[in-house]
Amino acid sequence: MTAASYAAVDWGTSSFRLWIVSESGAVLAERRSGEGMTTAAQTGFSKILESHLSAVSAPPHLPVIICGMAGARQGWVEAGYLDTPAPLTGIVKAAVTVTDANRDIRILPGLAQRDQDRPDVIRGEETQLLGAISQLGGGSHLVCMPGTHSKWVRVTGGIVDGFSTFMTGELFDVISKHSILSHAVADAGAFDATNVGFLSAVATAAKNPAMATNLLFTVRSGQLLHGLTAPAAKARLSGTMIGLEIAGALSTAKPGANVCLVASGPLAGLYQSALSALDLTPVTIDADDAVRHGLAAAAQAIWPA
Amino acid sequence: MTAASYAAVDWGTSSFRLWIVSESGAVLAERRSGEGMTTAAQTGFSKILESHLSAVSAPPHLPVIICGMAGARQGWVEAGYLDTPAPLTGIVKAAVTVTDANRDIRILPGLAQRDQDRPDVIRGEETQLLGAISQLGGGSHLVCMPGTHSKWVRVTGGIVDGFSTFMTGELFDVISKHSILSHAVADAGAFDATNVGFLSAVATAAKNPAMATNLLFTVRSGQLLHGLTAPAAKARLSGTMIGLEIAGALSTAKPGANVCLVASGPLAGLYQSALSALDLTPVTIDADDAVRHGLAAAAQAIWPA
Repeated sequence: MTAASYAAVDWGTSSFRLWIVSESGAVLAERRSGEGMTTAAQTGFSKILESHLSAVSAPPHLPVIICGMAGARQGWVEAGYLDTPAPLTGIVKAAVTVTDANRDIRILPGLAQRDQDRPDVIRGEETQLLGAISQLGGGSHLVCMPGTHSKWVRVTGGIVDGFSTFMTGELFDVISKHSILSHAVADAGAFDATNVGFLSAVATAAKNPAMATNLLFTVRSGQLLHGLTAPAAKARLSGTMIGLEIAGALSTAKPGANVCLVASGPLAGLYQSALSALDLTPVTIDADDAVRHGLAAAAQAIWPA
Repeated sequence: MTAASYAAVDWGTSSFRLWIVSESGAVLAERRSGEGMTTAAQTGFSKILESHLSAVSAPPHLPVIICGMAGARQGWVEAGYLDTPAPLTGIVKAAVTVTDANRDIRILPGLAQRDQDRPDVIRGEETQLLGAISQLGGGSHLVCMPGTHSKWVRVTGGIVDGFSTFMTGELFDVISKHSILSHAVADAGAFDATNVGFLSAVATAAKNPAMATNLLFTVRSGQLLHGLTAPAAKARLSGTMIGLEIAGALSTAKPGANVCLVASGPLAGLYQSALSALDLTPVTIDADDAVRHGLAAAAQAIWPA
């Protein structure tokens, strides 16, 4: 059997993922669980990590590289933020060591944009970015990482110039559950990324971003006056939020930047479809691959073979 | 004592207001309670109305004019919608009569905009509008009626051309309570309409509406990186939502239309201040006065002296 070289961990707010990686970069074992920061802050980070390492029979001294919320103030050991503009290589240099552990454990920092007007923070996505840029190479990129809080990052020649967080996923969720629109979208189920109502809402919101909260109301009034169905209502709500986000993100883009999408699962399909509706043809990189590649780049820099 | 001529009722989702009006238009008595449509749908509309009329010793055959949610499908008697474009005088003509009552009770209809792209509905504000336009006169007006669902109505020469609902108040509430921003704005208390952070957020959102959900995130990141206080966070959240609304509403305005604000209480101050920050100097009409004047206009048309 190939020897394990290191363990890589993506430790989010509500999720934990671990990969055991060989010297050649092959994944020897993988673990996924819901023991994110919220759980770990109660149970103990070390206990959770060691239980997963033990479950895959990892050697006692296997080093571990971690990104994500384990490095937050409320996490295991605070890994701070690297301030923009920041070279991506700086992320690895700013990794902090967990000192009270029996193995070599490093946690990668987040990124902070301290502008008075546009304060912003990233934690976890910087490692996805590191992995994505290793595939995209130099040049000027606008990298979209959709999610609860979508991150759009401007990278030029390996330097993170700045970024913007959009609360798209969280607002979609909160509006779906707690606003008057909850009745219109109740029990809607999933909709397809090529849904005409979704694409039309993306285009309308991107063209008229100022009308966003009016377009949201048409989810209700459309149900009232035109019998808009729950799946169509949900598609319109989602399309409006995503179209608004894309319009905002594009307004921050450097001229000539390549739009790149780093996403997995259904969200990848939705954003690809939405970007296409706006005549954009992004390179798409799988988010799971990106974070593993980012952690691998960090591991190779910290523990060169 | 001057004889009562009619009772006027503004019956909202969660509020009930009644005025006893004399032939000369003077208010002889007033009642306010929380028995809105939600309560009345359980308790009975007739019972609530009669108890308030009895409390002010209203004569048994005093007629009653009602606007608001009592005319909704889930209300007392459905009063339907008048479709745009609609003359304001049409509202009175489309009033419905409550047939199983011992007195003459009329309920005013709402307004509906049945455009496939911008379906919209109003119920209650059409009566405020009737009252406001009686003061504003002819010409072209863009009338702002802020609230849980802000209504901006385009009126030209007494004809309602169209209108737009913005979910500003409800979204402010839902985001404050249920999103990650709830921590940043917790226990913030009220802020002043001249709050610098509020005015700056209004201007920023109005100038960059596409960045709205990013500007919302700066409420959180500003707290994290710049120690933004809870009152400042609340002011920024409110200013962002109101600035976004105003930008959208102005994009629907006819050239040369006069902006008019129909509002009461703290909301009147906030919107006046926000509109001023965007170099607009609206005529302001008290919303309570406007609805009473609208109900009076309807009563005079239905029951001429």
